[in-house]
Amino acid sequence: MKTEQNVRLANHHISVDCVVVGFDGEQLKVLLLKRTINENGQEYHDMKLPGSLIYEDEDLDAAAQRVLLEQAGIRRMPLVQFKAFGSRDRTKNVKDVKWLERAIKMKVERIVTIAYLSLVKISANNTTFKAAGNELCWMPVDAQIELAFDHNIIVNEALKQIRHFVDNDPIYLFHLLPHRFTALQLRTLFERIYGKQLDVRNFQKKLKQMNYVVPLDEYEKNVAHRAARYYRFDKVAYNKMRR
Amino acid sequence: MKTEQNVRLANHHISVDCVVVGFDGEQLKVLLLKRTINENGQEYHDMKLPGSLIYEDEDLDAAAQRVLLEQAGIRRMPLVQFKAFGSRDRTKNVKDVKWLERAIKMKVERIVTIAYLSLVKISANNTTFKAAGNELCWMPVDAQIELAFDHNIIVNEALKQIRHFVDNDPIYLFHLLPHRFTALQLRTLFERIYGKQLDVRNFQKKLKQMNYVVPLDEYEKNVAHRAARYYRFDKVAYNKMRR
Repeated sequence: MKTEQNVRLANHHISVDCVVVGFDGEQLKVLLLKRTINENGQEYHDMKLPGSLIYEDEDLDAAAQRVLLEQAGIRRMPLVQFKAFGSRDRTKNVKDVKWLERAIKMKVERIVTIAYLSLVKISANNTTFKAAGNELCWMPVDAQIELAFDHNIIVNEALKQIRHFVDNDPIYLFHLLPHRFTALQLRTLFERIYGKQLDVRNFQKKLKQMNYVVPLDEYEKNVAHRAARYYRFDKVAYNKMRR
Repeated sequence: MKTEQNVRLANHHISVDCVVVGFDGEQLKVLLLKRTINENGQEYHDMKLPGSLIYEDEDLDAAAQRVLLEQAGIRRMPLVQFKAFGSRDRTKNVKDVKWLERAIKMKVERIVTIAYLSLVKISANNTTFKAAGNELCWMPVDAQIELAFDHNIIVNEALKQIRHFVDNDPIYLFHLLPHRFTALQLRTLFERIYGKQLDVRNFQKKLKQMNYVVPLDEYEKNVAHRAARYYRFDKVAYNKMRR
């Protein structure tokens, strides 16, 4: 270790950020938090991922769980650590640094953040997570809104991670889909994850090969178009296939 | 963000550690660095992963590359960031904290480290990496030697990561094997990665199915046992298979 080069490390901070991704049947969405910025006496808002500096005696995984509980009222969400982000550029935006310094009452020069990913079902129960004092929303991942810090980069890397998950194991699709879903919803989810349209006929073939996607005797209700059939994920058939 | 809980964050540090794993035809090995400890006037040695605190303006990936260059003389090694380790217990051993504080001349309370993984061929060229002032060695991953900090945990997580890589894509095996290898070497590598013996006959069947592992008209020389045939990895056949 070259000690002479180890200059000023004191204002480095460590945080966790949580990318919670859901699918509402049409779009892939990420859970964001409203942030209030005060600049020259003016107040305005933008969006960020749920996140926080870690506390003194807190493990990384525990910090990520705390963030979701405090900021989104979510308890014990399955979270996977997927990447650390440590570029010096993370804090190049003065607005972000000022906001954080005001919040933590400390000088901030650099923050390395450890990012976590969670895939959830957006259902009637959690379309709007509620937590004390925070305003949350589900934003389409391709909405092209400028987020705080490097959170756009983090969301993009999370999408790559989701593609990687699904490439290697289709079970991740069913973390995102509702318990019963239509063929159109499954196709749309594929399209959103891979960012391209699928040929309908090829998709139908693919669906038939997925013997762990089982048609139900249930159909959509109260729809203007022809009511589509529902399917469900069959975990037993899936486990047999994976063995 | 709860500001009142954000107490004392100043002695948090950020480091990178590199897990370089190789296979010598018999064992899976990890590259370790000798560390010198001074305790009560006594000097003794133990082992650690190559690693360093990050410098002020240094990105994480750049820090990992610097570590391998400075400490092992390796230039531009393909490295994959695989996990951040941030448990408070990482610095529970007083010996580690004293060693680091002496090296960096700063108080240390907590270090979050970002771990990188690299898979290499252990060949005649690099069985002993050499770098200025450092002593390096290849240690079998199952040697059960107590390493500095939580480096045993990091090495174990790296092995899990390697299993995950190989589960999803066999190409990683050939990052570890020499350019020509025997069937026994390939089987041994599987056994080392998965930590269990393979049935020889099942393995022979599996080998035949791997049409990207091509037998050569070359055989071992100067061996006491029957000379085994060499094989090579056929990237063209492999790419066809993966499409």
